[in-house]
Amino acid sequence: MHLFYQSLVASSESVSFLNEDDSRHAIKTLRLKIGDEIAVTDGHGNLHLAVITSAEARRCQFRVTDTKTTPPRSFSVRICVAPTKNLDRIEWFVEKAVEVGIERISFFFGQHSERRVLKLERLEKIAVAGMKQSLQSYLPRLDEAVSFSELIKTVDEEQRFIAHLPGVDSPNDASPVNLARAATAMGRYVVLIGPEGDFSEKEIQLAVAAGFQMVTLGANRLRTETAALTACQFLNFLNV
Amino acid sequence: MHLFYQSLVASSESVSFLNEDDSRHAIKTLRLKIGDEIAVTDGHGNLHLAVITSAEARRCQFRVTDTKTTPPRSFSVRICVAPTKNLDRIEWFVEKAVEVGIERISFFFGQHSERRVLKLERLEKIAVAGMKQSLQSYLPRLDEAVSFSELIKTVDEEQRFIAHLPGVDSPNDASPVNLARAATAMGRYVVLIGPEGDFSEKEIQLAVAAGFQMVTLGANRLRTETAALTACQFLNFLNV
Repeated sequence: MHLFYQSLVASSESVSFLNEDDSRHAIKTLRLKIGDEIAVTDGHGNLHLAVITSAEARRCQFRVTDTKTTPPRSFSVRICVAPTKNLDRIEWFVEKAVEVGIERISFFFGQHSERRVLKLERLEKIAVAGMKQSLQSYLPRLDEAVSFSELIKTVDEEQRFIAHLPGVDSPNDASPVNLARAATAMGRYVVLIGPEGDFSEKEIQLAVAAGFQMVTLGANRLRTETAALTACQFLNFLNV
Repeated sequence: MHLFYQSLVASSESVSFLNEDDSRHAIKTLRLKIGDEIAVTDGHGNLHLAVITSAEARRCQFRVTDTKTTPPRSFSVRICVAPTKNLDRIEWFVEKAVEVGIERISFFFGQHSERRVLKLERLEKIAVAGMKQSLQSYLPRLDEAVSFSELIKTVDEEQRFIAHLPGVDSPNDASPVNLARAATAMGRYVVLIGPEGDFSEKEIQLAVAAGFQMVTLGANRLRTETAALTACQFLNFLNV
């Protein structure tokens, strides 16, 4: 059955509508008709079974026939990452992180960031596609990029980590442990991943002062987007 | 210091040469000169410090001054994956798997594979780039694509797993456990990842008969390349 996304879905007493893109896809591309069954996730944990009640190409109407609600995961993963110079790499990270499972992705501009602009619109579409692709009913939250100091203020997770490039020495460097050993199961996690130029000394001090523990992701030097996905995968694995 | 790859490196008594691409890069692009220091990995665990002894743009000569040998990992990860329709996705998998750490990547054409041709040349360049990027001194082995039955004959790893799409039922499906629970540390692992159309029933029976255990990689339906990288990450994590 075809899966669509609509954050606002009415109960079975009333009808709802697919957005314009999904409506066109449903009616023009898939040639769906009145009475055809579709699945609609609202991104908040609800997967609705529905039937098309009006096959308009710009405003496809449907009525919910059944709803399956999935509870949220028993842990939460938030990755805060500096956008890469090459946008493809950050788009790739969003696609993959959503597929494997993540609750929240926050972006920040670090002192060593080369990229200073990030539009969320395309990334949000990638996130929706990834959620549908992997048959999930929760849409991860994406946050607009802010400065590093602004980002730190938004952190309310208990388990806080800042990924440290292997081989990079700094006054704060007390040979960090691997994230796999530092994190404990069933937690609310946040991991900071720096830009290509890594974090500045000032940013590391700011994070440590805010209760972030420095961790490594292994011996290999990972690209920004690889490090971000690896942190996400490690935390998912920890909670299998 | 600039890192190059040359599988054949002579001892300090003699001289060695960079290949044509690396020579051009070293002399034309980086403008390196006689006496300049470079690092050369042989992909077999040796990282050589060397000095350029002849700055020829097609055949850059160098002499090793010091060699640092890294022991292999205490475990080994081999992922066998069916090439995706879209080559970008399998190229992406090779780049990321090499970055995070893998010993061997084997390709196979399954009964449900749409792609029937795979050239290794470009993938091997991506692997070399990934090894250099992540500062490793071992180059993972890439195997030419073969049929599924041929592939099974090449397996000599003890811990054998075949990834199963969640929600896909089959006579063999005894609700597989997660790879994270099925694998044990310090092993030699091989994981089979199917094509977009998944494995055929016949292929699953063949694998099970060859001692492969069916496993899942979590509740989400993952794309082929995402599943392949996730299996690799889980096994790396298990051995942190």
